[in-house]
Parts: sequence; structure tokens; C-alpha cells
Amino acid sequence: MQKPGKATPGPLSLNTATVKVQWSLAECIEGCLRHGITGISPWRDKLAEYGVANAARHIREAGLTVTGLCRGGMFPAIDAAGRRAALEDNFRAVDEAAALNAQCLVLVVGGMPAGSKDIAGARGQVQDGIAALLEYARPAGVKLAIEPLHPMYAADRACVNTLGQALDICDALGNGADDTALGVAADVYHIWWDPQLAAQIKRAGRRILAFHVCDWLVPTRDLLLDRGMMGDGVIDIPAIRAQVEAVGYDGFCEVEIMSSENWWKRDADEVLRVCVERHASVV
Amino acid sequence: MQKPGKATPGPLSLNTATVKVQWSLAECIEGCLRHGITGISPWRDKLAEYGVANAARHIREAGLTVTGLCRGGMFPAIDAAGRRAALEDNFRAVDEAAALNAQCLVLVVGGMPAGSKDIAGARGQVQDGIAALLEYARPAGVKLAIEPLHPMYAADRACVNTLGQALDICDALGNGADDTALGVAADVYHIWWDPQLAAQIKRAGRRILAFHVCDWLVPTRDLLLDRGMMGDGVIDIPAIRAQVEAVGYDGFCEVEIMSSENWWKRDADEVLRVCVERHASVV
Repeated sequence: MQKPGKATPGPLSLNTATVKVQWSLAECIEGCLRHGITGISPWRDKLAEYGVANAARHIREAGLTVTGLCRGGMFPAIDAAGRRAALEDNFRAVDEAAALNAQCLVLVVGGMPAGSKDIAGARGQVQDGIAALLEYARPAGVKLAIEPLHPMYAADRACVNTLGQALDICDALGNGADDTALGVAADVYHIWWDPQLAAQIKRAGRRILAFHVCDWLVPTRDLLLDRGMMGDGVIDIPAIRAQVEAVGYDGFCEVEIMSSENWWKRDADEVLRVCVERHASVV
Repeated sequence: MQKPGKATPGPLSLNTATVKVQWSLAECIEGCLRHGITGISPWRDKLAEYGVANAARHIREAGLTVTGLCRGGMFPAIDAAGRRAALEDNFRAVDEAAALNAQCLVLVVGGMPAGSKDIAGARGQVQDGIAALLEYARPAGVKLAIEPLHPMYAADRACVNTLGQALDICDALGNGADDTALGVAADVYHIWWDPQLAAQIKRAGRRILAFHVCDWLVPTRDLLLDRGMMGDGVIDIPAIRAQVEAVGYDGFCEVEIMSSENWWKRDADEVLRVCVERHASVV
């Protein structure tokens, strides 16, 4: 079957969550080199473990592109002190993204504070938090990528749940559709089901700062840790890739698979080998 | 805390899924009588077990209102014969709803056929199926209630995932906003997260044919069978109830809790007692 759009997807990037149980960040960098993967997207826990300066030097020497830093966000809190602490942590995340020359800082915005049922209030706190963070990130040259998360995470991880909702925030806080200081991370896992997907990708245009791939398994056995390898699920990944490319996205395809019962239990070199194969055959 | 809207919710209805492991339909009917519950919404498997005529007589003698029949739908199939078989089964569901004098037939529309990644195609099949079913249901006096299901069910249970999407189908197939032959079932579990919820409830108006309650637990341990009792989760149920009442909904609150590890393991009379309490205190 002919895949739509460009014959070949953008280059592959490894989100370190994909082998988080098996490898340190240093091992991820070396693994990328062994497997011909030219991009990497570290999580901040792995980065802290290695040290930002060490990691930045190693990644630079390896010649890898940092397609994103995971993650900032988690803005809502029960009180002003909590929100201030969250914001301060986000400032540090911006500093780290700058040190790594990351293409963006990915924002998983957070859900409702414990005990709250006020999702509209949480959404307001998120927008306020992003507004304050943008003032810090823009002069630092760090782009912010709001990642809408699947609605099943609305309560506890991210109350921004559609591309349309993320773009509403971009429209409210950014300087129009050409301002890429604030944009979105489009992860097929979170957005594939959205009946408004095609329209919202068009609306996003150049504000798509990252494109993440994995797959939706049927059945899905765990809300958080049962993501599938590209090709093993039901998402028409090439169709979505063609849509983001049609509005100008020409960056990496970042693979991010959280899979406690399958891929996290395998040899990490095998995982990367399959990622490379599937990136070529089904993305 | 003062609940918004009317002080008292509409009367309680028992969806038989709530005690499906413990009770037959006959036991559900008797249980409703014991607990002062005046509405019931049977699933078709329980109905088939009892026999439609027996069930209809028992429910009538008990003086219960049938707030819905669960369920029609499951329209998409791999080929025309499969779609025809699905439609024929839906015709039988309409017949049963008519025999029970049900306020609506709830439609869980179905996901993608096995092996398919074409969600747009599945959505097209759903709309075609509902169009054909409406021609059968309208003269029979049976209202069809499209139930948008949470996006985590998009692949395998229902590819209609928002109220807005369900209303697009109503607009396409019905005779305007006053035509209640085709409407929606609003279940807080499926729609609470939607940033467009308030706007879409307004748009729905009188086409809200059923209002279902339960709660979203944090954490949710199973995609299908870990629904919470009203008040045990994070959904602001009174706020959503106030919104549906504001557009004219004055029917029952139907409780539908699928809970394999908690409520299905308890004594069914205890479950109904808690439903009645929570209906009064937190809905």
C-alpha cells in the first residue's frame, strides 16, 4: 500500500521514555549512535541524573538533535505558593532546554489539584502559568510546545485535551499563527481520535513544534503504560503525518512508547532496532 | 456547599449494568421497588433472558418508567452483509424499546471493524446506519439517543466521542433542533472533560433524551470496568446537571456504574442504597 504524503518520514528521534527502564541518558545517546538515530528527546529525571552540562556535551559530541525536553508544565496547584513553585520549576526547565539547545520544551500542563473538581479553574491556572512562562522562555529563545493529552488524562495529568484547546491558548497568548515561540506538540496517541483533527492541524500551521509517534493498542490494558509500537495498533500514522507535513512540518518523528509489560521488558537495543524498522515501514 | 440549579435532581433510574453481576432483570425491578427507585434502563442481554413480554408486564405492574433501552448501535462492519446484520439487530432493538415503552433506544455506535485503521470510514458507516435506523424508529415512535463515548473507546466501542460530533449527526439526519426523534444521551463519564461541553449542551437543547451519572475515579484502573459511584470521583455532577436542566431537560438521572472490582462485588441492595443516598447528596 502506498503511504500518503512524502515517501519518507522526517528523521527519527528517540524519546528516552521509550527505554527508560533499561537505559540511562548516556546509554540512550550511545544507543542512538549505534542505531543511526539522529534525534533525542530526554526526560528531565534522566537529565538530572546525568547532569545538564555532561549531557549537553555528550549530545553535542554525538551530533544528535535535541527534538524536545520532556517536560515542563504541571501548573495547577491548590494555592498560590504551589503555583509559584511549579512556575519556578518550569523556569529551570527552560534553562535546561536552552543548555541542550532543545527545539522545544514540551508542556504537559497538569490536571486538577488533589480534591478539586473544578476543571475550568485548572484550565485557567494553566493558561496563567503558560503566560508567565512564555515571558521567561521567549527571551531565552526556548520554544514552548503545549502537548494536548488524551482526555483520559484530563483529571490528573493534563486538562488540555485537544489540539483545538491548545491552539486557543496559543491564540490567546502568542502573537498570531506565525509566532512559533508558543506552539503545540502533536502526539498521534493523544489526538488520533479527534473528529476535528484535520481542521485543527490546518489551524496550527507552523506552530506544530514536535510530532510524536507510537500506536493505540486494542485492547489497551493500562491507561498510562500500555502504548504500542508504531504499526501494532489502530492509528493511521502516515495519514496524520501527511497532514502535519502539508502545513509545513518538516522536523523529526519522535518515538515515545511507555510500555511497562512489553517494550520496557525487552533488550533496549532490540527496542531501538524495531523503532528504526517501523519508522521506515509504517510511519 | 450549595449545589447549583434545582435543589433536587430528577428522579433516579437504575441502569441494570450497575448490578449486572448480581441480579437478573426481574430482581432489578423488585430491587427498584424496595428502594423507591422509579425508573429502570435494562440492557438487552438481561431483557432477552427474561423475555420481552414478561419484562414489559413486570415493569408495567411495578409502575417503573423505562428511561432507556441499552443498547442499539455497533453499526460498522467489515462488509455490507455485516452492516446489514447490524442494522437488522437494531430494528429488533427498536421493536423491544417500543414494547417496553422506553423513552429512548441508546445507541453505542461502534468502533472500527477489526483490522481497520479508517476511523473516518467507520464514522461514515455510523451515520449511514443511524439514517437507516431512524426511518424504522420514527414511525415506531421510538426515539434514538446517540451516546457519545469517551475518546478512550474510539477504536473498539464508539467512534462518536463528543457531544458536538453526535449533534452534527443529529443536524445532518434530523429535522432541526426541535426534532427529538433523534437526540443524544449525555453521560457525565464520557463528556465531563470536554472543553466544549457547555456550548454543546446549549446546542443540544431538547435533544438531550437521557442523562446518565456515575463518576471518574483517580486513578482509573481499567478502561472499561472501573467507573465510580457518584461523589467518589472528580466530576462536578451538579454543575453538568444544572446545564442540561437549563436547556429544558426534566427527566430522570440514570445511574450506570460498571465496576468489576468494587460495586459488582457488593451486595446489590447495598449498591442501590448507596445510589439512592448519593443521588440525593451529590448529583
